[in-house]
Amino acid sequence: MQKIKLGMIGGGLGAFIGDAHRRASRICNDYQLIGGVFDVDFEKGQEFAKQQDLDLNRCYATVDSFIESELALSDVDRIQAVSIVTPNMLHYEFASKLLKAGFHVICEKPMTFTVEEALDLKNIVDSSNQTFALTHTYTGYPMVRQMKEIVKSGALGKIHRVDAQYYQGWVNSIIEGTGSGITGVWRLDPKYAGMSSCMGDIGVHAFNLIEYTTGLEISSVLSDLNPVKENVQLDLDGTVLLRMNDNIKGVIRSSQVAAGEENNLTIGIYGSEASLKWSQEDPNFLYMLSDTEPTKVYKPAHGYNTEFAEASHVMPSGHPEGIYEALGNIYKGVAKSIRGEESFDGEFPTVEDGVRGMKFIKSVVESNSNNNSWIDL
Amino acid sequence: MQKIKLGMIGGGLGAFIGDAHRRASRICNDYQLIGGVFDVDFEKGQEFAKQQDLDLNRCYATVDSFIESELALSDVDRIQAVSIVTPNMLHYEFASKLLKAGFHVICEKPMTFTVEEALDLKNIVDSSNQTFALTHTYTGYPMVRQMKEIVKSGALGKIHRVDAQYYQGWVNSIIEGTGSGITGVWRLDPKYAGMSSCMGDIGVHAFNLIEYTTGLEISSVLSDLNPVKENVQLDLDGTVLLRMNDNIKGVIRSSQVAAGEENNLTIGIYGSEASLKWSQEDPNFLYMLSDTEPTKVYKPAHGYNTEFAEASHVMPSGHPEGIYEALGNIYKGVAKSIRGEESFDGEFPTVEDGVRGMKFIKSVVESNSNNNSWIDL
Amino acid sequence: MQKIKLGMIGGGLGAFIGDAHRRASRICNDYQLIGGVFDVDFEKGQEFAKQQDLDLNRCYATVDSFIESELALSDVDRIQAVSIVTPNMLHYEFASKLLKAGFHVICEKPMTFTVEEALDLKNIVDSSNQTFALTHTYTGYPMVRQMKEIVKSGALGKIHRVDAQYYQGWVNSIIEGTGSGITGVWRLDPKYAGMSSCMGDIGVHAFNLIEYTTGLEISSVLSDLNPVKENVQLDLDGTVLLRMNDNIKGVIRSSQVAAGEENNLTIGIYGSEASLKWSQEDPNFLYMLSDTEPTKVYKPAHGYNTEFAEASHVMPSGHPEGIYEALGNIYKGVAKSIRGEESFDGEFPTVEDGVRGMKFIKSVVESNSNNNSWIDL
Amino acid sequence: MQKIKLGMIGGGLGAFIGDAHRRASRICNDYQLIGGVFDVDFEKGQEFAKQQDLDLNRCYATVDSFIESELALSDVDRIQAVSIVTPNMLHYEFASKLLKAGFHVICEKPMTFTVEEALDLKNIVDSSNQTFALTHTYTGYPMVRQMKEIVKSGALGKIHRVDAQYYQGWVNSIIEGTGSGITGVWRLDPKYAGMSSCMGDIGVHAFNLIEYTTGLEISSVLSDLNPVKENVQLDLDGTVLLRMNDNIKGVIRSSQVAAGEENNLTIGIYGSEASLKWSQEDPNFLYMLSDTEPTKVYKPAHGYNTEFAEASHVMPSGHPEGIYEALGNIYKGVAKSIRGEESFDGEFPTVEDGVRGMKFIKSVVESNSNNNSWIDL
Repeated sequence: MQKIKLGMIGGGLGAFIGDAHRRASRICNDYQLIGGVFDVDFEKGQEFAKQQDLDLNRCYATVDSFIESELALSDVDRIQAVSIVTPNMLHYEFASKLLKAGFHVICEKPMTFTVEEALDLKNIVDSSNQTFALTHTYTGYPMVRQMKEIVKSGALGKIHRVDAQYYQGWVNSIIEGTGSGITGVWRLDPKYAGMSSCMGDIGVHAFNLIEYTTGLEISSVLSDLNPVKENVQLDLDGTVLLRMNDNIKGVIRSSQVAAGEENNLTIGIYGSEASLKWSQEDPNFLYMLSDTEPTKVYKPAHGYNTEFAEASHVMPSGHPEGIYEALGNIYKGVAKSIRGEESFDGEFPTVEDGVRGMKFIKSVVESNSNNNSWIDL
Repeated sequence: MQKIKLGMIGGGLGAFIGDAHRRASRICNDYQLIGGVFDVDFEKGQEFAKQQDLDLNRCYATVDSFIESELALSDVDRIQAVSIVTPNMLHYEFASKLLKAGFHVICEKPMTFTVEEALDLKNIVDSSNQTFALTHTYTGYPMVRQMKEIVKSGALGKIHRVDAQYYQGWVNSIIEGTGSGITGVWRLDPKYAGMSSCMGDIGVHAFNLIEYTTGLEISSVLSDLNPVKENVQLDLDGTVLLRMNDNIKGVIRSSQVAAGEENNLTIGIYGSEASLKWSQEDPNFLYMLSDTEPTKVYKPAHGYNTEFAEASHVMPSGHPEGIYEALGNIYKGVAKSIRGEESFDGEFPTVEDGVRGMKFIKSVVESNSNNNSWIDL
Repeated sequence: MQKIKLGMIGGGLGAFIGDAHRRASRICNDYQLIGGVFDVDFEKGQEFAKQQDLDLNRCYATVDSFIESELALSDVDRIQAVSIVTPNMLHYEFASKLLKAGFHVICEKPMTFTVEEALDLKNIVDSSNQTFALTHTYTGYPMVRQMKEIVKSGALGKIHRVDAQYYQGWVNSIIEGTGSGITGVWRLDPKYAGMSSCMGDIGVHAFNLIEYTTGLEISSVLSDLNPVKENVQLDLDGTVLLRMNDNIKGVIRSSQVAAGEENNLTIGIYGSEASLKWSQEDPNFLYMLSDTEPTKVYKPAHGYNTEFAEASHVMPSGHPEGIYEALGNIYKGVAKSIRGEESFDGEFPTVEDGVRGMKFIKSVVESNSNNNSWIDL
Repeated sequence: MQKIKLGMIGGGLGAFIGDAHRRASRICNDYQLIGGVFDVDFEKGQEFAKQQDLDLNRCYATVDSFIESELALSDVDRIQAVSIVTPNMLHYEFASKLLKAGFHVICEKPMTFTVEEALDLKNIVDSSNQTFALTHTYTGYPMVRQMKEIVKSGALGKIHRVDAQYYQGWVNSIIEGTGSGITGVWRLDPKYAGMSSCMGDIGVHAFNLIEYTTGLEISSVLSDLNPVKENVQLDLDGTVLLRMNDNIKGVIRSSQVAAGEENNLTIGIYGSEASLKWSQEDPNFLYMLSDTEPTKVYKPAHGYNTEFAEASHVMPSGHPEGIYEALGNIYKGVAKSIRGEESFDGEFPTVEDGVRGMKFIKSVVESNSNNNSWIDL
């Protein structure tokens, strides 16, 4: 089968998220990276293209020239899908242009800077025939997909509570450092990062994971955020109370200054009949608790899993797959969509997930500014 | 050394918490159970006393007759300390009477029904010469004590965040049951349980654990509670946002309807230099995380622990001690206090902890009734 | 109910195993410690008795005077059961005397110095009417008992393999120390410890745990032992291949010089349908694996456990009980036997377990001396 | 940088190990798959090549035609390295031919059928200028590499004991199945699998992991193997006693019939100062134990790791990488070798590892046949 021709905006020399996308595209083996705009500095972009053994003619200086030149190529040669892995403030502009020009788009999160942009992007996607995917990577783990399907099966009974956590510690070294650290880090600068650091960067993953696995919509939030240090403009830590329909309540806890925490994303879904718990740092173990039976530990590559979970893991059981494979599963889902193949419900996050995420971030920031009052999404 | 003569109010046939207190008193070996008022039904109380091989003359029908008769005995024979393990609504009355009559008191939590009673009891204790202890049992674990002392040492740097959880699932079987379950359970009945179920019974343990280990005072709370079912009058589930001095924030999460959770009390204390994590169901493991060093796992019975932690564990390392030993450590601390021996800071919870706990419960309930607004303790 | 009057041989000032026995006897609450021979140094024994608030008339200088004086007392006053917690080489002599004199005996392991003594002791027990118990403490854990009953139920299918481990590291500090360490430690001295250190002290626990949980008899062994250092006379480390009937094979691995290991006793029982795994340092978790279902985690205090396991845990689920409670469960079983009450199969280890253990130790030592050949037990 | 042109022998439709090699080659991004002999059935091989979007001219019917045709191509176009992922009995023949024809070779294990073949292959490699790698994949994990370097640093003191385990359960379904299962499975057929099933397939990984991480040579073995069922010709389960120099002893335990075990490879290295423990199913956690300090948990992507370990993980800490990335690390090492770049000690397993492995398998089988006597490697 012919590979989908892939372009990339951003992700040049030293960029770890761009590298992750490329690896994912290679793992699922449905794509071939052809070219892109790898750096704002064209020379560096070219250096990167050389390093990657790419055709330098397909390495462009700007997104506009990318579009113009690629559209001039024949259908057979033209790049079909583009991954956007630039800093946050550029996602909206580039995604809009590329979609309007007819490219499929795989976009890093957060999707946009504002809810308005998100809604606008949704309109563009809705009126196009292309595939748009947002890389909430954690939805690509087989046990997250298994979780989604167990919930859907009704095995938890009535859901009482949802509790998600995303703790990291890496910002400590920046704000506690002696240098002029804070100003130099784009994630802490509203101009580049948007209205939130902790909630915008990682809290929103916890939010997405809740909506993805439970199928519930979070209807309103009440937040308490913490910039931690006086000269920090954005939140580095916070807690968000959640309300969903049917009197289901929950909480999202998130921090970038929890010393020693690496990438500790967890979720617990607590029901009247059973509960589910999962942790990103041990992604191949899913725990199902009940009041009357021994706790069950689900792992990938077993007949007891759903078809969707099983399709998300290749190796025999006991061979751990990780974050690249999770992202690869999302790329696989996008490829199926581009090719018009039938896919599983939830095989990749959509523009709708992006709109939801932006609403979450906005509402959380608003609640915090508004005396920690309830804000509807 | 002569044993301290111990009496008990409540805790007769079938009572698990009274049994736990008696075991703890025997483990630490500083007490001898002499008599008490074991049941509101005097005959059942006597039956229990027989089963325990106690002198039936020291088995009383009421607390008043207990006090009268014991005071009539010589110093040598008289019961010195009394454990109160009755339902919640009787703690205050009995503790007050016994303290005023000159007995040392060990009281189950919650200490009283109201903050006013708690403050009154504090006055009584303060103006007496006796020891009063509240059994926040989890403070008796060696690794909890180690945690307290590591925080005190400053090793965490600036504390950014505190996060405690207490999840149970046992109330599911009551509220989901087909019978007239709810009305028959005293913990769900405001007349017997007080103003809160989930927060009053277990959330307050999480609160106490935070103040105990960090040495911080929680100054205000914002809560969102959930009775879960229409005909339930008290909270069975909830989240509480916390504010402490120095811009430290935190959260308490608690539930009695998280299916399959047993007694899942955890705490995380996150600082700029290091963080600590502990879980009650694996009480002999304390995790210390830092951004620059491998995670360290502390266990009891090692030279690297503080003197206080080491005094709280008897067996060589690798021999797990449990909840009875934790409670035994608190009884040991009380015995040292009664005997006038020097003790460690925090060797048993005091009436002040009880006042703090009642303020917490009251404020949490008030915040929830008051549109989830911030309430000072 | 009247308490059983308990005596103790050994276990005076500073002895940790004697202290453990006393705590266990108090936890189960069926005993009252009356007196004993607490130390070879009579003055120290008396000092200990005072510390314990015991009647000094019941504190004896020798086992002979203990027997003579106690037998002179009335049935009502006389000590009924005696715990022997002396160094290994005294177990046989004291147990024999006490049994012949009509006392029930609870004896620390190893039961004797030689197989011949063990068989002799078995004859004495068999021809007496008293209860004799050997404290293989780990058989007192509720999840070990659950394991035994799951195996008995046939749920594992055909057992293929058994694998037990007992690793400690405490001997490192002795043999690597600069002083004349080795000679001063009785466990490393054949005169006091017997023919083996590592296998005799801890390997035999692993052996007992296998036979206890599987109900299988180990028929022959092949061992490779290691004294590790030149001037050490006994094994400090070793591996033992096992053969049982029905072509079942297995292995015991044991060490006292595995740096950092505390008391790491584990067992795995692997069958054609399912397998069981348990670890002493996390005693309240029992894992059942199968090729077709999610791993199940059994914990105490649940309706899914057998009656025997449930009778071995008092607290509600999620309240960890530990090593003292395990030993207390064995003391409880002994009390039931003394009182003629019906007990569970395997409620305490017997003289037969002691004989098996001595045969194991002897065979293991013999195999090692005999070019690592197979030796029948 | 130009990609290394990769060929593959075996690994066509439905082959999981060939797929793993291809993914690994794409993850490390130093290779491009050009062609190969993907199936003994040429048509199926071609079907696979189409599916992979490969040039059908580079899809060959036999290894001989592969060699002939590729050698006829120019240096620029010719395949440079070949992965051999056929059944075991073909490794030697194909590796020999390809090496002699001037190709670099990446070979699945076991390297050959016999020690003689292994030694012969070693001669071929030694007298060639090419790179030969054996895919003991587990040596590609960052924490295994960290373990190797910690041992090398001397931090464990004197090593006392090594203990490795490899348990799986998948063969249960075959031997317990009702069909004519056993005969149909090549891994259980000596003609295809060689002289051993359990030890040859997985025990040898444990052996390699020991020699890799400790730098020690296992000098002699004593084994007890078990075919488990009457009509099984090869071992499905076994234990191997190990002796190394300096009086270091150890054990390898391995099974393919341990129900519910997935791919449970573990290693413990126990020294006088510290010990290390690692488990393949949680590959990103490495535990270092000592008698005097808290256990330390090493994880990838931290400054405290060695340069080699850090070079073996790309993502920031807390983003789990898995088995594909481990194999990718080995492919990366091979690429560096092919390109003449400087590499780390142990960056890929060599023909010498293959010789050692074959000697291990042969000696283990011999010991078992020879009354479980010691056999030198």
